[in-house]
Amino acid sequence: MSYLDKHVGLYTDQYELTMAQAHFLQGRQEIEAIFDYFFRRTPFDGSYTVFAGLQDVLETLEKFRYDETDLRYLQSTGFHPDFLDYLSNFRFSGEVYAPPEGSLVFAGEPVVRVEGPIIETQVIETLVLNILNFQSLIATKAARLRLAAGTDRKVIDFGLRRAQGLGGIHASRAAVIGGLQSTSNVYAGRLFDIPASGTQAHAWIQSYDDEYRSFADFAEVFPKKCILLVDTYDTLKSGVPNAIAVAKEMESKGRKLFGIRLDSGDHVHFSKKAREMLDDAGLDYVKIVASNELDEHVIEDILARGAPIDGFGVGTNLVTGRDDAALDGVYKLCKSGGKPRLKLSENEAKIINPDRKNVIRYYKDQQLYGDGICLQSEDPENIVTLYNSDNDDFDVGGLDREVVLGKVMDDGVSRVGRRSIDDIADHVRKGLAALPERFKVLRQGPDFPVGVSKSLMELRSRLIEEAKNKYKQSQ
Amino acid sequence: MSYLDKHVGLYTDQYELTMAQAHFLQGRQEIEAIFDYFFRRTPFDGSYTVFAGLQDVLETLEKFRYDETDLRYLQSTGFHPDFLDYLSNFRFSGEVYAPPEGSLVFAGEPVVRVEGPIIETQVIETLVLNILNFQSLIATKAARLRLAAGTDRKVIDFGLRRAQGLGGIHASRAAVIGGLQSTSNVYAGRLFDIPASGTQAHAWIQSYDDEYRSFADFAEVFPKKCILLVDTYDTLKSGVPNAIAVAKEMESKGRKLFGIRLDSGDHVHFSKKAREMLDDAGLDYVKIVASNELDEHVIEDILARGAPIDGFGVGTNLVTGRDDAALDGVYKLCKSGGKPRLKLSENEAKIINPDRKNVIRYYKDQQLYGDGICLQSEDPENIVTLYNSDNDDFDVGGLDREVVLGKVMDDGVSRVGRRSIDDIADHVRKGLAALPERFKVLRQGPDFPVGVSKSLMELRSRLIEEAKNKYKQSQ
Repeated sequence: MSYLDKHVGLYTDQYELTMAQAHFLQGRQEIEAIFDYFFRRTPFDGSYTVFAGLQDVLETLEKFRYDETDLRYLQSTGFHPDFLDYLSNFRFSGEVYAPPEGSLVFAGEPVVRVEGPIIETQVIETLVLNILNFQSLIATKAARLRLAAGTDRKVIDFGLRRAQGLGGIHASRAAVIGGLQSTSNVYAGRLFDIPASGTQAHAWIQSYDDEYRSFADFAEVFPKKCILLVDTYDTLKSGVPNAIAVAKEMESKGRKLFGIRLDSGDHVHFSKKAREMLDDAGLDYVKIVASNELDEHVIEDILARGAPIDGFGVGTNLVTGRDDAALDGVYKLCKSGGKPRLKLSENEAKIINPDRKNVIRYYKDQQLYGDGICLQSEDPENIVTLYNSDNDDFDVGGLDREVVLGKVMDDGVSRVGRRSIDDIADHVRKGLAALPERFKVLRQGPDFPVGVSKSLMELRSRLIEEAKNKYKQSQ
Repeated sequence: MSYLDKHVGLYTDQYELTMAQAHFLQGRQEIEAIFDYFFRRTPFDGSYTVFAGLQDVLETLEKFRYDETDLRYLQSTGFHPDFLDYLSNFRFSGEVYAPPEGSLVFAGEPVVRVEGPIIETQVIETLVLNILNFQSLIATKAARLRLAAGTDRKVIDFGLRRAQGLGGIHASRAAVIGGLQSTSNVYAGRLFDIPASGTQAHAWIQSYDDEYRSFADFAEVFPKKCILLVDTYDTLKSGVPNAIAVAKEMESKGRKLFGIRLDSGDHVHFSKKAREMLDDAGLDYVKIVASNELDEHVIEDILARGAPIDGFGVGTNLVTGRDDAALDGVYKLCKSGGKPRLKLSENEAKIINPDRKNVIRYYKDQQLYGDGICLQSEDPENIVTLYNSDNDDFDVGGLDREVVLGKVMDDGVSRVGRRSIDDIADHVRKGLAALPERFKVLRQGPDFPVGVSKSLMELRSRLIEEAKNKYKQSQ
């Protein structure tokens, strides 16, 4: 099962279809077009974005069709019979270029390039944006949580209950891609073959007259990996003492309590006290897990204050990508009918980069150094300086380099096999390992160097001039 | 088609299933339980929440099953064979009580009450929360947008591209429930029978060498409801003059340009100038639509500054419920095994209200006056004062009243027919019309009066005392 199984052709904005009909009726459907997917701002005040969702985009494009019921619906809303006839045989036949899913990508550079007939490349805009914007946002959040928690502690996705409806399914996928160990979300666990985890809620304990009895009964059913929730009545006076009593009873049967979970109050205070109480009872092996409105900043803070916490359950802030809630990715026409295309803007920095482009990634001492946006037709060998509207030009002569955008779909068929989530997560880990530390801070991440080649800069300037002259002359 | 069609029983958190197994193996599955769904904080700094998602909850509960493949998956993750055997015949057989979808609801009061065997009522927790938290959040955001824009202007959902994955489908549903006219989301348009709208993007214009020609071609295909996007090159020097030229040409053929859309820059400045230019050309009937990072505050502000804008397209901030991104709804056990249940907390105000409850809504002069939470067993006739932990007690003697929670599901079967989105949206309109103006401000909305009956207050206090004494004695 993938993103959408049915009616995929309707997973689009109405204006994609009105534009498609207009292209069709004006005889423009064979015009070749190139669109870039890119974002302008890195989420969460950071320096990087984890690219996620590619697998779902490719699988969804392969299933992009209009069935009889879809066409009847579109007819009822006024679309032209000839256009509907065209849609009845519609499939996406274009090419897609992208880095491997799980790569680090940066603001302003093309992340995905889509090429093909203008109707086809236009009408898929919405789904490309919907999938990539969301999954990249959540994978980025997860990578930040992983960095905050350190490599030795578990971080688990607890978010489905607060996720944005069915968005929760792919939030869990992206969370594991970004570096989390497991998810509470059983549906996603099955769908993506990722570990599902979770033990008990307050309701389990409340449903007993006695907290100790509730713990003992649960431990009897789950002697392995049993985690007891200790804050239903009073964490230190009731929950932890009862958990200790159950743990000692388990020991007498040759079993070991796996852990306790703190879900309220001051995590630093309670974890230190609980650790002391557990250790004093000879239970140094019992782990402490914390949850409740956590995010990367809270985790960084409580660990800095010495909280002896072994694992974190993170919900709302992870799966909704709070505080950003969206990555601002856009999908812009950069070439059509053989001509580079441009859109002006009140703000010069927001003017798009025209033409068919690629990104060259430069490394120095195996660490990421900077990205260069260049024309696809350029020989990377000839690029020595990259230019930046912030005047942060940088030289890349002699550095190791790789081409970032590779072909992942040809004639509408994916060229990349389905990769496991583990494999994609591993790619994220390696990418982050190659990212210099200064770009991994959780607040006010500096801009990663991204520049354009001289040829691209000159083309852009020339097209801006031409466009401005055009409407000046028409006055 | 509704929320999920397959594998619905997996749309849950892992701990619901571990608790279910523990209940089952401990012979506790027949214990009768009651859970309340409620939220603690009103989103968006407002006073009210629009209750949405009920239809999807009920339809999803009716389909809550485990098929062979689900059971094999659960077996592979270690669940007990006897429990899986139990799940193979699982269906939700409980009762659900709720107000009609589209009702206004308030922080701290039970919004949905679920009753039935403890396993069944527990295992559905996650989906109830997931659906109601999200759709109520977005319907509330939409209602705020509607209030900001006033009743005469159109507000359209443009959000699918930035929505949280598949969450975008139900975001559009909730947006129309909350008061929007239409959506760009064709998939949701078909699924929920709501109007889809949209005309052209920058790519349409960019794909031509000439902006005027792009407008003329589009208008030829869509002579009715044609809206031209005027900011691709320069709004006032190029876009509006070209739109005017096309509009005059349309007039010569007996047609009328419907509108222009502004998607960047200062909306107040550009809309005033564009209005002037259109009016000077005798095109006072051409509408002005605005989009680009709008929310209720921006709309309120630009209208206050006199922008002559006839309609708004709102995307990211609507469909993600930014800045909140989640409603903090919870699902708490309040009775089981015939006993009222409680959970303590470090914060007294966060201690839940125990036992089987209902909400009485009071009206004064046809306007909402306050809500009272009482025991289901109480005669509303005897309730004269409602008590509040903020010491805002209020009297309700002699006021008109209605009981808020009614039975909507019996033995796992919905008792309410499928209502149209229009019908639900109409219910929201009527609810807002009965809400005093002071609760409709967009910032720092005052708390709507919600109190508890004397009987409930006394029961809660007694149970808190008992619980505290219990762990004090055990020390």
